[in-house]
Formats: sequence, C-alpha cells, structure tokens
Amino acid sequence: MSQSIASHPDRLLPADPGTRSIARGLLERVQDLPIISPHGHVDAAVIEHNTAFPDPAALLVSPDHYVTRLIHASGVDQDLLRPQTGAHGDPNAVPDARTVWREFCKAWPLFEGTASGYWLRTQFQSVFGLQEEPDAGDPDSSYDAISARLQEPGFRPRELFKDFNIEVLATTDDPLDTLSSHQAIAADPSFHGRVLPTFRPDQYLNIAHPQWRDNVERLIAAAGDGGTDYGAYITALENRRRYFVDNGAVSADHGVRTPRTLKLSDSDASRLFDVARSGKATAQDREDFEAHMMYQMARMSVEDGLVMTIHPGSYRNHHEPTFNAYGADSGHDIPFAIDYTEAVRPLLQDFGTAKDFHLVLFTMDETVFSRELAPLAGFYPSVFLGAPWWFLDAPDAMLRFRSAVTETAGFSRSSGFIDDTRAFCSIPARHDASRRIEASFLARLVAEHRVTEERAHELIVDIVDGSPRRVFKL
Amino acid sequence: MSQSIASHPDRLLPADPGTRSIARGLLERVQDLPIISPHGHVDAAVIEHNTAFPDPAALLVSPDHYVTRLIHASGVDQDLLRPQTGAHGDPNAVPDARTVWREFCKAWPLFEGTASGYWLRTQFQSVFGLQEEPDAGDPDSSYDAISARLQEPGFRPRELFKDFNIEVLATTDDPLDTLSSHQAIAADPSFHGRVLPTFRPDQYLNIAHPQWRDNVERLIAAAGDGGTDYGAYITALENRRRYFVDNGAVSADHGVRTPRTLKLSDSDASRLFDVARSGKATAQDREDFEAHMMYQMARMSVEDGLVMTIHPGSYRNHHEPTFNAYGADSGHDIPFAIDYTEAVRPLLQDFGTAKDFHLVLFTMDETVFSRELAPLAGFYPSVFLGAPWWFLDAPDAMLRFRSAVTETAGFSRSSGFIDDTRAFCSIPARHDASRRIEASFLARLVAEHRVTEERAHELIVDIVDGSPRRVFKL
Amino acid sequence: MSQSIASHPDRLLPADPGTRSIARGLLERVQDLPIISPHGHVDAAVIEHNTAFPDPAALLVSPDHYVTRLIHASGVDQDLLRPQTGAHGDPNAVPDARTVWREFCKAWPLFEGTASGYWLRTQFQSVFGLQEEPDAGDPDSSYDAISARLQEPGFRPRELFKDFNIEVLATTDDPLDTLSSHQAIAADPSFHGRVLPTFRPDQYLNIAHPQWRDNVERLIAAAGDGGTDYGAYITALENRRRYFVDNGAVSADHGVRTPRTLKLSDSDASRLFDVARSGKATAQDREDFEAHMMYQMARMSVEDGLVMTIHPGSYRNHHEPTFNAYGADSGHDIPFAIDYTEAVRPLLQDFGTAKDFHLVLFTMDETVFSRELAPLAGFYPSVFLGAPWWFLDAPDAMLRFRSAVTETAGFSRSSGFIDDTRAFCSIPARHDASRRIEASFLARLVAEHRVTEERAHELIVDIVDGSPRRVFKL
Repeated sequence: MSQSIASHPDRLLPADPGTRSIARGLLERVQDLPIISPHGHVDAAVIEHNTAFPDPAALLVSPDHYVTRLIHASGVDQDLLRPQTGAHGDPNAVPDARTVWREFCKAWPLFEGTASGYWLRTQFQSVFGLQEEPDAGDPDSSYDAISARLQEPGFRPRELFKDFNIEVLATTDDPLDTLSSHQAIAADPSFHGRVLPTFRPDQYLNIAHPQWRDNVERLIAAAGDGGTDYGAYITALENRRRYFVDNGAVSADHGVRTPRTLKLSDSDASRLFDVARSGKATAQDREDFEAHMMYQMARMSVEDGLVMTIHPGSYRNHHEPTFNAYGADSGHDIPFAIDYTEAVRPLLQDFGTAKDFHLVLFTMDETVFSRELAPLAGFYPSVFLGAPWWFLDAPDAMLRFRSAVTETAGFSRSSGFIDDTRAFCSIPARHDASRRIEASFLARLVAEHRVTEERAHELIVDIVDGSPRRVFKL
Repeated sequence: MSQSIASHPDRLLPADPGTRSIARGLLERVQDLPIISPHGHVDAAVIEHNTAFPDPAALLVSPDHYVTRLIHASGVDQDLLRPQTGAHGDPNAVPDARTVWREFCKAWPLFEGTASGYWLRTQFQSVFGLQEEPDAGDPDSSYDAISARLQEPGFRPRELFKDFNIEVLATTDDPLDTLSSHQAIAADPSFHGRVLPTFRPDQYLNIAHPQWRDNVERLIAAAGDGGTDYGAYITALENRRRYFVDNGAVSADHGVRTPRTLKLSDSDASRLFDVARSGKATAQDREDFEAHMMYQMARMSVEDGLVMTIHPGSYRNHHEPTFNAYGADSGHDIPFAIDYTEAVRPLLQDFGTAKDFHLVLFTMDETVFSRELAPLAGFYPSVFLGAPWWFLDAPDAMLRFRSAVTETAGFSRSSGFIDDTRAFCSIPARHDASRRIEASFLARLVAEHRVTEERAHELIVDIVDGSPRRVFKL
Repeated sequence: MSQSIASHPDRLLPADPGTRSIARGLLERVQDLPIISPHGHVDAAVIEHNTAFPDPAALLVSPDHYVTRLIHASGVDQDLLRPQTGAHGDPNAVPDARTVWREFCKAWPLFEGTASGYWLRTQFQSVFGLQEEPDAGDPDSSYDAISARLQEPGFRPRELFKDFNIEVLATTDDPLDTLSSHQAIAADPSFHGRVLPTFRPDQYLNIAHPQWRDNVERLIAAAGDGGTDYGAYITALENRRRYFVDNGAVSADHGVRTPRTLKLSDSDASRLFDVARSGKATAQDREDFEAHMMYQMARMSVEDGLVMTIHPGSYRNHHEPTFNAYGADSGHDIPFAIDYTEAVRPLLQDFGTAKDFHLVLFTMDETVFSRELAPLAGFYPSVFLGAPWWFLDAPDAMLRFRSAVTETAGFSRSSGFIDDTRAFCSIPARHDASRRIEASFLARLVAEHRVTEERAHELIVDIVDGSPRRVFKL
C-alpha cells in the first residue's frame, strides 16, 4: 500500500529539459543561503525555553488550519482533529493524539497537489526522516517514527534553528507584550540567530474587535501620557512602537478587512474615538476609524522607521458555528475581492514618497497583482509587492504572481519570500518551495532569451537574499 | 482548398515530449470509462421516442448558440441561421437548411482555436465520418455526407447513447413536467442507460420572470396543500421535488443572476410573496425574495437529498432587439463579476456542514476560482467546485481552473466534468476534451515531481469517474 | 562589467524545442510585413518637419513614463529625470542630459524582465547599433554612441519611417487641431507613408477636465452652427469629426474613467450641459454627461464611419504632489477594476449591430478578457477586442490575453497590435515583440494539435496584417 516518500531533486522545476537544466543551476546558487523570515507566527518563548515539540498530531495537525480545513471538508468533525476552544466549547475536549493522527493518515491522499501536501511531505522526509508516505492502513508506524525523532536531543527549537540555517526569524506580537523572550534570546551569547518581534496592533485599532475597549484602556494605562483621550491613545501607540524598535522590531503588521485608508482631522478622529469608547459607534464609524488608523500607522512608520505590512481581504471566521466551537484560525477565513488603487491613495498622497518609508502590500485577490500592485510598486518608492500569501503561497500561484507583476515592476520591487507560518518545522520546506519556483520562473525567462543566464544568477540571489534584507531593513 | 480533418491522437496534450508521454498513459487509463453526464439539456423525449435527428443545419447549427453567436459576430444576420421565435418574429421564418449550412461552412475558419471548433471537428470526424474539413467552396459535400449518416438506422438517439458509452444522462426539467418520458425510458427493459430528470425551478422562484405569477398559480393548483398562500407555495415546491426524487432525480439546478442568499422569517417571506403576486414588488423585493428562495432550496436539499447546483453571473439576453426576434438562448448572455464569499454565507451558516448536503458552485468569473471557491470548498464539506462552465468549458480555461483551485482544495472537491449541452452528438467530444485536459494537468504535476505517476493514475480515475458519482450521489 | 547586448534570434519564443521550431516558421511568415500602427502618440509635426531627434536622454528617458516611473520607484527624484512642468514646477528646471543618462544607466538592471527593458534593449541593438548593455560604470560610452547616431543624416524621422517599414501611422489629435502637419505630409509626393490623425475629444466631453468650459467655448465658436447651446455643441463635434474624416482619420479615441454609457433625452442632456457650463454640475451630473457623450460618440461613429476606441479604467495622476510638479503622464496612472457588461449595454442596445460600426474595447483589468470582452466580441458584430494595452502590452500578458479570449472569440475578433506609443524609435521593437508572441501562442496550439500548421500560417498573417486593416478600415 504505502509508497516511498523520497523526493526528487528536481521537484517543482519545469518539465522542459533545457529549462530545467537552467533552473537547476539557478537553484544551486541559492540553495544554501540562510533563511530570512521577516514575518511569521512562531512563538518566541519556544525558542527562549528551547521547549521540546509535543506529539506528532499536536505538532503537525491540530494547530495547522491549512491541514485541518481540508480534512474537515472531507467530512471529518473538527472534534476529532483539534481541541474545542471557543465560547461554547468544552475546554477539556482534546482528542487523543493517535486518533488525530489516524484521521490525518486517512486524509493524506486529499493533500495531493496542494501546497500543504508539499510542505508536509518535505518535512516527513527531510526533518523527520520517514521513508514512506503516511499510510491509513498503518498510522502507528509514521506516528512512532516521528515521536521518536521528537524526543531526540538534537530535535529542539534552537538546534533546528541552526540546522535549518535560519538567520532571522520575526515573530508577531501584541503591542503590550513585554518582549521578555526576545530580550532573553538576544542576551544569550550561546544563541546566534536573530529573533525579532513584530508590532501587531489590530485588536487595538479595530473597534469591531470584541476586546477593543479593554485593549484601549490597558494600552493607555500602560503606555499613555497620563491623559485618557485620543491623544493619549496615539501617544501610547507611539510609545509601544518605540519599545518594539528598541527591542529589535523592524516591522509593524496590519490585518485589516479592506485596504481602505483615510485622513481624519484630529478633532474628527478624537470624536470617533470617544463615540467608540462609549459603545455607540456605527458600522461607518468603525470603518472610518480603522481607515484613519491605517493612515496614522503609516505616519508613525515614517517617523520610527518600522516597515508597514498590510494583509487585507479575508472574511474572518466565515462559519459562525465553527468559530463558536473552535475560535479563530479554525480554517474558515475566506478571501474576497479588494481594491487597492483608490483605497491606499489617501495614505500615499502624504507618505508615498516619504524617505525610507516601506509599505508592503499583500493580497489573496490575484486580480490586483497586474492591475494595481505592480503599477503602484512600479512608481511609489515606498510600495513593495508582498509575496503571494496564504492560499497563494503555492507553486502555481507564485508563478502566476511573477508573471503578473514582473513585466511592469521588474524584480526589485518585491518583498522576498514570507513564510507567515506558526509551523516551525515547515519553515525550510516553505523556503525551499519558494526558491525552486523563483528558479523555475527565471529559467523560463532565460530559455526564452528574455534575460541572460548570467543576469538571472544575480537576480535570484537578490530575490532570495537581497530583497528581504533591503525591504525589511535587516 | 479543403483540408483533412483527421484528428491527431495526441490532440490537446502538452507539447513537451516527456510530459506528453505521461499524459498519454493517463488518458489511456480513462479513455474507455463510461460517460457520466449529471447536468445537461438534452430532451428526454428524444431518447424516449428514439427520434431521428433532423438535417445537419437543424442539428448542428441553428440550436447551438455557441455556434450561431460567432457567425453572427462576423456579420451574418441571424435570420440566415435560425428561426425567428421571439415576440416580434415571424414564426414561419425558418431559413432553408442548405442556406444555413452554407453560412456555416463560410464561417468555419472563425472557429479555429475555439472550444466549439474542437467539438465540431471531433464530431465531424468520429460521429459523422467526414474525411475533410467543411469547405465554403463546396458546402454540399459535407451537408450530404452528414445527411446520409443521419438517415442510417444506427444513427438514432438510443443507438448513439450506447455507442457513446453513456451510463447516466441528466436532463433539465420544469417543476411541473410529468416526467412521462423519463418514466417510459425507465420502464423499458430494452434500454439500459439511465436518463434522470433535474428539478429546475428558476421561473417559479424569480419574480422578475414574466411568467412568474402564472407559474406560481399553476404550481399551487397542481401540487399545493389546498391553500393559496406562501405556505402552499413552499409545500408545492417540496411536493414537486419529492416527485422528481421519486422519478430518479439527483439534483436541483438554479440559474440565478447573483449568488446572493438570504434567510427571511416566514412572515417576511410571506409578505414579499403576497406583494409580488399583486404585481407591486420593487426591484429590492424581487432580489430579496430570490435570495431567500435560494436559502429555502438549500433547506429542501438538506431534507430531500437533491444535490443543489448554482449557476450565477450571466446577464441574460443582453441585446434586447435580438431577444425580441429570436427569444432566449440566442447567443448574447454575457457574464459579469460575482462575489460568492459574502453571498452564500447566510446559506452556509445554517447548512454548510449539514449531513449529506451537496452544493455545487459554478462561475464564469474566473477570479473566484482561487479567491473564493477553492477556499470555500476546502473547508465546507457541502461545497464542491463546479467544473468550468459555458465559456470556460474549454481547454485553456480548464487548465487555469485546475491551476487556480488545486493548490488550495486538492482534487477531491470538484464536481467532475459537466457537459451542460443540448447538443447530444457533441457529448463524447466534450468529455473527450475534458479527459485530455485532466491528463495534461496531471502529467505536468508528475513531470514536475509534485505527484507520483502511480498516484496520478488513481487521481484521474477518481476525477473522471469517482467525483461525479460521489458528488451527484449516483 | 558590461555585457553584450546581442539579442538572440529566438528571443520571446517558447522554450520547448518542437514548439519553438513551429514558432520560428510562423514568425518568418510575418517578420517582413509592413508595420500598421492605427493608434499612437507620435507628433505629426515631427514627421512633417523631419526634425532630428534630440539627445539620448530627451529621446529615450525623460518623456517615457514607463521608464521614469521605475527609476523613480528605485528612489531617484524625478527632478533628475525630467523637466518640471506642473503648476508649481520651475519651467527652467531641466536636468542636464548626461545627468539623466547616468541615472538611467544606474537603473538599467531594474528593467530586467520588463516590457520596457525588452523594447529598449532591442532599440539599443537594432536602431542605435550598441554592442554592449548600458553600463553604470561608463555611461558616457553609450551616451556618445547614441548621440553620434542621432546626428547621422539617415537618422531622421522620415528615413526611419521607411527603414522601420511603417505603412500607416496614426497620431492622436485635439479636435480643434488644424491637422496642417497631416495635410503637408499627405501633399508631399516625396513621402510615401500614411500619417493619419485620430479624433480625441476627452477634454471636450469630460466636464471634470479643468479646461472643459474653455474647450467647449472654443469648440462652439470654431465649428458650431451659430448657436451656443447643447445643439451647437453636438453640431460642432460632428463638424470636427467630419473635418478629421476629410483629412484621413479612421478612428476616434476615448480615454474615460469608466466604460459607462447612457442614453439621455435631448432635453436632459441639454439641461446637464447648461448646468455644467454654469459651473454647478454635481459629480453625478458629470458622470451622467460623460456616459451620455459616449453614447453620442457611438451614434456619430455609426453615421460618419470613424472606428470608436475606448480606453477606460485608469486612475489618472494618482499622486497629486507629482502631478503638481510634473503634470500629467508622469508615471502614476494606476488601473482599477472595471465592468463592461452592464456599462456598454445602453450603447450596444442601439448600435451593437449597426452596419459598419466598429467599437474597439481596451482594458487594463485582465479579468474582463474572458469574462466580458470575449463574450461581447463573440456576439456583437461591432465589438472588437482591443490589444493588451499599456501595462499589459508585454509578452506574458499578451499570452494570457490570447489564452483568455481565443477559446470564446477565436482569432477574428481582435484589433491587431496597437503600439500606443509616443516613442517613435520603439515602434519596430514593440511590433516585433507582438509578432513573436503571436507566433508563440499559435505554435503552442499547433504543437498541441489544436490548429494545423498550415492554418496557423494563415492565421498569423491575418492577425498581424489583416486584422488592423479590417478593424480600422484601412
């Protein structure tokens, strides 16, 4: 039944033999470069404490909504895959690890052709040393093999950090986080990787968030100027950003519903802020305030130098019953159409050419790649093309991205690869896939005599190594 | 002048020799599988009575709006191509069959590169045995050859049904249809194919349809509970669906302007229903009621098990003068942008995870493939990706579809191929094209070492044979 | 450092050897056909006076917003690249030509993979005879080589017109232009090229244009019927169109924000016209009037035979500070999403099947290619698919265009290539790129046995030579 998992050295490279041979050369050029990961969701405490990873299911299945969602679509109840964490869930309802793993092995064939399937297969082989595909007929053998590996002393986060050749890893953090893990890591002379915090203030800017009012009170109390009004709120945000900068942060990340930006007068903003705190904000008030705060975040980035990244266009928690049972990030955030051209204009009017301002725009709506993002990034010195994100972080989607943006914006206006993952062990597989696809795209341009092979070798090094350093000011 | 029509055994397969060789093997695996056609527009009476097909023009040109539209675009008046059937048309104005065929032969080169051209060429060769392309210089020779074939005894619908290796053929039927043809076919022990009705209630749900009020009266009178109100209307729909189920139907099909759904209270729905029957519904009332009825259709599907298929996003009868002369389906239905994420949320809140509910979503707006449909189908157990439909039922569009959805949703979440045709003789050509494209896509994944060849052989059988059986509960 | 610029004879052709060999044959078939350029922005006076071209920077960098925009994005102030021409600019602030050229040479690697890079490289080699790539380490050697070439007697516009094998070149002209340059060229027996004017009335139709009121006064005074009202305005437009027709014009071009069309009654249109002249038009009034004038332009095209071309969907002058300093066309027009299906319906209701009416629809929103434009052009005899335009006039984008439209509309419904350029010396490079891409697309269809090689040879000649003659009535 089971099949060898041995991956082919030419995986993801183009089929045409001539193009493949060019791609191999390009890949070789970057295969051993260090991993730079300027945006992701690994917990810094895991690195600080060098905690052993839990069992295979809790490491690879339950927390990965890319994985649980497709198993769920096949008809498996999420109760069998992950703890219930939502308002109405039973906090003790944690399924048995071998039960979860058995469901995963049954579902494994569903992942053929998916990006998750590629990352998992690569991990199974190169990180966990499996010889065969997970097999529904014998789930225990893969479970046991991975479990054994997880207990090895060399299989701790810090050792893997080094094995994976990670140079920089950015985390995503609450504005009031003490950043003590980051401080401890930086202060430890025995660890050489850079683990950087990222300022992520969504839940302090978006009035619609259930905790917004509480968050604002805590923020003002912790970092304000003594006042309690809009001015204190702005000051507190500035102060916390400064704290992040002082602790090594290079960027501030913003998950917003739409990319809309708006410049309100201080008095209008102040009025909306007060209305919102009294619990009387209308839907329009909330949208205006969030759009205004994006403008404010850009202003602060111009002043404090944090790179600004925007991730819009996802309908979060689309299926309410699932949200109620399992909370956020349970696999049903669904993208929708967005418009950047009009939406970011207010922000770009004032900051689009500001010195050293970097604004990285992400999308899950592919239509904006050629229509809006490449034209914007091809004019504004501040605007950079975010790497294909989330559902688009996949081989064909990456090729469509390069094809859509390069003819307008060239190669110099992209962010470099962003893995955006909380799955630490998948980081090398994700960067490997990206490098193979960059090699594939460039190899086609070489084969079609659009770019010389010599220049392509320079370009791929810049894409993999130069761009993220430059764009994220590393 | 004329050119051999002999089709190449490798038609539609990828050019790269290595990939082509893999594709050949995959195609061979499925080439002889029976045809399963769970949605289309063939008239069951044609199978029941085993009626001989009419002349070449009336079979292949006049009723096929894919064909007449492109000839019309080249400047040929539709009077020369099809009967006038509209309000202002002359019902006797049927052009002479040889005149129509002559126009077709002149226009034949326009079809190069089109899906229709591919289907026609395949039919000419494999169904009608032509040796040469239709030739404007000698239209009679192809006309005569096809005419002769049409008179052969073996060239009757039932014989072709068998020759074409059709196992299941679904028709599309009015909710008040007696389904007598389906009953006769099912009762005939000499015929072994399955011909299934499909419940298509658009003109009973959409207030904007000119016959809506009449249809509602007839529906309530024929299948209601004795009452005349909204409750009777709902009951009558449920009763007719039950009648369809009892006569073998597996799905209910819905052609709607937008994919919007809405849950109204019974009292609100009842009020809108009464307003509409009094002829006073506003545009907003009509839209709300149709959206609500989509919700109701989902509820009924959950209860009676009919698979629900939705075809939105077409501006029907875009050119009014043509509609007035030739009626609906005269070649000027034009797609527009749609949004599924927000639109189907009300329906999916309540039925998205309902047991055995199957919802197949179609689109002619390709942008929703990667952005909305793959993410929806990759989470909701009920949601399946409808095959590329209508203008997108074409080789390159199918490849774009697979590329757009697979990395998020894998291969298990698609409907399988849907021919959606009223052109009976084109059915094998359409399924053949689809199988070749599936083989081409999978062959690329194999060649790029994303999927093993062994697994690809399993996948293509599931795509061609397993998916339609599973999704349409056959 | 510097690299040979020698271009490969197979540039832009597909990598697969079999497909490339077919593409070579197809390209050979059309490589020597004359250039037909039915829409562009070369100044007729340049041809009339046969003016020598200025220095390399003023010819190739400063006026080309494709080029300056990407250099600007890399952080170079536009003051170093082009004269300030805007309201607040210093009209004497013209940067030194060698300074501009030095910045260009530094930025040259940014153009790898872009369409502009391709056109420039081709010009450098075939028009200017450079042996090596521009080199930031030695900008003077390329500057001097091009300068020397510019002073050669054979390097004048009329000589290049002949060398480039241009048969027809259309300019873009103000409705009140005397067309004296066109008359002089036509009257000169020593010059054999056709230089045709194009009627471009945007600034006379769009109330939002700052000069609209002045333009209307001048128009009515110059070409009206003695009155001063809406009727006189319409008459004046008709008269000027007639004047253009009499001077060889074949088309009227319309740059509009959206493709919306609207049929107003004469009295409503007249009222809006008066309101607008009194300076009191609302945003809605302005939009309605422009939409109505598109309807009127179509009516006039039906009457006077001018081909109607529409270019919507660009947010002009997105960055106001740059507009204020450098005026329009300074690199920050950014596309946005458009909808054609609903928007052009009013126009097509009345003129969609009008005899000899030609309506060419352009887009920078690729999503409408398969969704709206191919279905419209595949039914309406008047509608033609505009070639991929502006940011989409690039190799991969052209391939996406052909893939998106061909399966629905075939090859007969496209406009033929449109270079749309003010950069005279780039014309052969642009047409060369287009021909190579058409050959590449057709070669794939041949290799996949969708079209015979014989038929593909006919098709490419029709695409390159037949289509523009037919669509633009040349």
